[in-house]
Amino acid sequence: MTQTYTVADYLLDRLAQIGIRHFFGVPGDYNLQFLDHVLAHPQITWVGCANELNAAYAADGYARCKPAAALLTTFGVGELSALNGVAGSYAEYLPVIHVVGTPAQRAQRAGDLLHHSLGDGDFTHFARIAKEVTVAQADLTADNAAVEIDRLIGVALLEHRPVYLMLPSDVAQAPLSAKPAPLMLRQAKLSRSALQAFIAAAREKLLPARRVSLLADFLVDRFGAEAALDEWLQAVDIPHATLLLGKGVLDENRAGFVGTYCGGASDPAVKQLIENADVVINVGVRLTDTITAGFTHHLPVEKCIDIQPFEAWVGRQRFSRIPMREAVQALHRLSLSLASRWPLPPIVRPTLPETDGEGLDQHAFWRQIQDFLRPGDIVLADQGTACFGAAALTLPRGCRLIVQALWGSIGYTLPATFGVQTAEPQRRAILLIGDGAAQLTVQELGSMLRDGLKPVIFVLNNQGYTIERAIHGPEQRYNDIARWNWTQLPPALAGERPVKTLRVSDPDGLRQALREVADDDRLAFIEVMLPKMDMPELLDTVSRAIQARNAAA
Amino acid sequence: MTQTYTVADYLLDRLAQIGIRHFFGVPGDYNLQFLDHVLAHPQITWVGCANELNAAYAADGYARCKPAAALLTTFGVGELSALNGVAGSYAEYLPVIHVVGTPAQRAQRAGDLLHHSLGDGDFTHFARIAKEVTVAQADLTADNAAVEIDRLIGVALLEHRPVYLMLPSDVAQAPLSAKPAPLMLRQAKLSRSALQAFIAAAREKLLPARRVSLLADFLVDRFGAEAALDEWLQAVDIPHATLLLGKGVLDENRAGFVGTYCGGASDPAVKQLIENADVVINVGVRLTDTITAGFTHHLPVEKCIDIQPFEAWVGRQRFSRIPMREAVQALHRLSLSLASRWPLPPIVRPTLPETDGEGLDQHAFWRQIQDFLRPGDIVLADQGTACFGAAALTLPRGCRLIVQALWGSIGYTLPATFGVQTAEPQRRAILLIGDGAAQLTVQELGSMLRDGLKPVIFVLNNQGYTIERAIHGPEQRYNDIARWNWTQLPPALAGERPVKTLRVSDPDGLRQALREVADDDRLAFIEVMLPKMDMPELLDTVSRAIQARNAAA
Repeated sequence: MTQTYTVADYLLDRLAQIGIRHFFGVPGDYNLQFLDHVLAHPQITWVGCANELNAAYAADGYARCKPAAALLTTFGVGELSALNGVAGSYAEYLPVIHVVGTPAQRAQRAGDLLHHSLGDGDFTHFARIAKEVTVAQADLTADNAAVEIDRLIGVALLEHRPVYLMLPSDVAQAPLSAKPAPLMLRQAKLSRSALQAFIAAAREKLLPARRVSLLADFLVDRFGAEAALDEWLQAVDIPHATLLLGKGVLDENRAGFVGTYCGGASDPAVKQLIENADVVINVGVRLTDTITAGFTHHLPVEKCIDIQPFEAWVGRQRFSRIPMREAVQALHRLSLSLASRWPLPPIVRPTLPETDGEGLDQHAFWRQIQDFLRPGDIVLADQGTACFGAAALTLPRGCRLIVQALWGSIGYTLPATFGVQTAEPQRRAILLIGDGAAQLTVQELGSMLRDGLKPVIFVLNNQGYTIERAIHGPEQRYNDIARWNWTQLPPALAGERPVKTLRVSDPDGLRQALREVADDDRLAFIEVMLPKMDMPELLDTVSRAIQARNAAA
Repeated sequence: MTQTYTVADYLLDRLAQIGIRHFFGVPGDYNLQFLDHVLAHPQITWVGCANELNAAYAADGYARCKPAAALLTTFGVGELSALNGVAGSYAEYLPVIHVVGTPAQRAQRAGDLLHHSLGDGDFTHFARIAKEVTVAQADLTADNAAVEIDRLIGVALLEHRPVYLMLPSDVAQAPLSAKPAPLMLRQAKLSRSALQAFIAAAREKLLPARRVSLLADFLVDRFGAEAALDEWLQAVDIPHATLLLGKGVLDENRAGFVGTYCGGASDPAVKQLIENADVVINVGVRLTDTITAGFTHHLPVEKCIDIQPFEAWVGRQRFSRIPMREAVQALHRLSLSLASRWPLPPIVRPTLPETDGEGLDQHAFWRQIQDFLRPGDIVLADQGTACFGAAALTLPRGCRLIVQALWGSIGYTLPATFGVQTAEPQRRAILLIGDGAAQLTVQELGSMLRDGLKPVIFVLNNQGYTIERAIHGPEQRYNDIARWNWTQLPPALAGERPVKTLRVSDPDGLRQALREVADDDRLAFIEVMLPKMDMPELLDTVSRAIQARNAAA
């Protein structure tokens, strides 16, 4: 007897078709029926997480490496716990398909007083909540399932943002009314005439220019324009920089790469090369506060060409219906004939200063991390000293940096490392996270150990929330945290899995530790003792800007 | 020079006036200005938590012991992480004042692209989200602060549910426009005529009755009717039972107490004594699925008198504007003249069966926990085997049970124990939690250790989500969790604080452990090894009912 083909099977087949191989989440009694089908699916592996927020973070990390991610929670308690993670995926443009197991349709219609509800018979509260942080929502029935699943997957991939899918426990098991058809994905709309007009306006802007610069940010990665941009910058010499959120989208070893641009907090040479150009081309850039040191950038709209996911701007002139890649390729072609007028100025790229080798401080730490990096590494740096310190690194070829600098939820990177390493088990994931941040989400270390994953984890122990100390209240008690014996923690969460744990408090110790873990085949956990108020220069500048803005009425 | 009296000071003074002594939360850069005032306040202590969901759970636990609780998070990332906890407080009627530090007003008005926002310049998303799970919301300004703070505190206390207060970073520090006036709290409205009509209808219903029974549930505790109910049941013999969510609101050592009523899963004697009465009086009862074994109760509306927080029902007749306590006192007076017609039937209270003493299973465990309890203990039992096992305990006088059986968020009780023990440091808090549940929120153990709190914690290690196994998929991999070395965990989170850690796997070991911790002055953590599929009988019945309902279309 053949098994009935159900709504659950259809959903899973579609997820597999778009390249999803793992389903992150936490079981709950309204999603167990669906979970049976997840376990039975030949291409998709269930990845249980310790809690739902961590599962959402893991899915977000996964979606940074794969075409999309899938997240499963249960009604009410589960989905709300995951909400902050899903909101982060929305803010930072990651396609996470959030499937929520809900009570059976009959119970919902009857308004039963069910557990995991607010006890008022209204089952629509959480869908309204989800609407604020997802780009599309659906409540599945046996009849609408095929259409709605295809619609939501299409929107998630096109807009590269999360969607919300309510799956009642009985619907999961319902036979599918419609036969599965080939998956037709929507493409971003291209207006040929808008593109021509854009090219004409860009030519007019670029023609008189003697100096041109280019800024690239995270949306280049999200909307698949990385290769097109890379080809352009290989063919044409333009001084270029990334913003922190998009660091890694450009090859940092090319002659024209000048460093990380962060508004007024930039290295003077980077600032001058970018801002003093006659035309600045922005690709996939969002000028948010933390990555511009509190809006201290000087990039007047009049001298900018701005390429966004679905539209482009020349100064204040807007051209809609131009996908990012098309605009990049158009400017590439255009600049071939113009670039001889823009000789590449001399570029002295900022490097990390040499240290005297005495104490272990932020300088010494980042200097050694720079040397530890290998091509192909994926580096995750949590909001705080880690993320702002990482801004000064030069990434080897094919090395990625993952930071969550816009949404900025501390603790995010630890479960995200779980997601990244699940997606890319062959690459080395390196996590840099403060002790304050790690306390929020630490239980996911257990899941990484359970699954035999082997990231290298650095916990920067500076006794509390140094980033908050920098912004306000350096010696206030609220920036202290519970003191943990960090090196005892990984063995406690490891079961019988092997784990390598180290604690370093001077430069030689760190050097030795890095040598050891480079050749070790276990998950490595290194506690790095750092001075409480020591911080990367960039963080110091950024936090002073934020402090001033918080105080201003 | 005297310090300016600010909006922050006013808010804190009001919270102190209603009996709040602790502020739970996590620092974030939009609430640091306010936090300075929290630390400076003479009556309120800052209690930093490891993450925001845990902080919300801790505040919920605190609000179960004090008139209300205060919770502080930061905009976006912080408040959304706390949302599931706040929703639980909404579902289960706990007044939590949720204060969210938001960006300065000027930045919000300008629609700046700030971190912790969705990057779209819209700062109203999260307020719309909060609206679904709180009873009142306010966005504070220097001008409206005094009025809005008083309004929200009033609504929270009256409706005994959470409220949401947005406090921009600049407003926190703004001088208060209005002088603080005495706090005037709203009282529940009483309609004398409705009360008279209710008494008349109740008399008519009760007059022909030969057998009357009474059910009490959690709303008795929330709306302050416990003492009035206790006086009534002392004066008049009526067989009475609690539902699981309200277990502990009645003195379980009184002759008329028959046990825990849970619909069709009740002990036959309890079921018979409650359901076979001519009139059943419900006080503060919500007949939700988990506590009625999937709506298997037989309590026809026609034979019920139902007392709710602000109204009362006799059969299908509704009487509004009657506060619960007034209705209880009215029925007390009424029944004095009638009760001689209702002789107390013989009551044989169900007790825990004796065990043979061989293996350590659920029977043996609960038998010993029963003997371990002392008057005045506060027992917290997490959703799962713990909560359903605790239903069979007989609570010593003055002993409280805290379960979250309606909202049912696993992991809730661990941080809730932190809140309860902070509110009641002199009482012994006993936490009963499964290994699956504990993994969700375990980092708050570190906060309890930091603050020198000394609960007794039992982790029931049955290798995963036994409650989910019971409902569906007993051997499915999704009900397994990462294996931890539990006894190594507390020392890792303890810093230099002392902690007692034990692991027991047979009845004698448990007996010995209970003796040891009874006289120990440290936080005690006992890992109890239990069979994977062993569960309290009640859980077995309830979960079969839920399974059936999830499958039914």
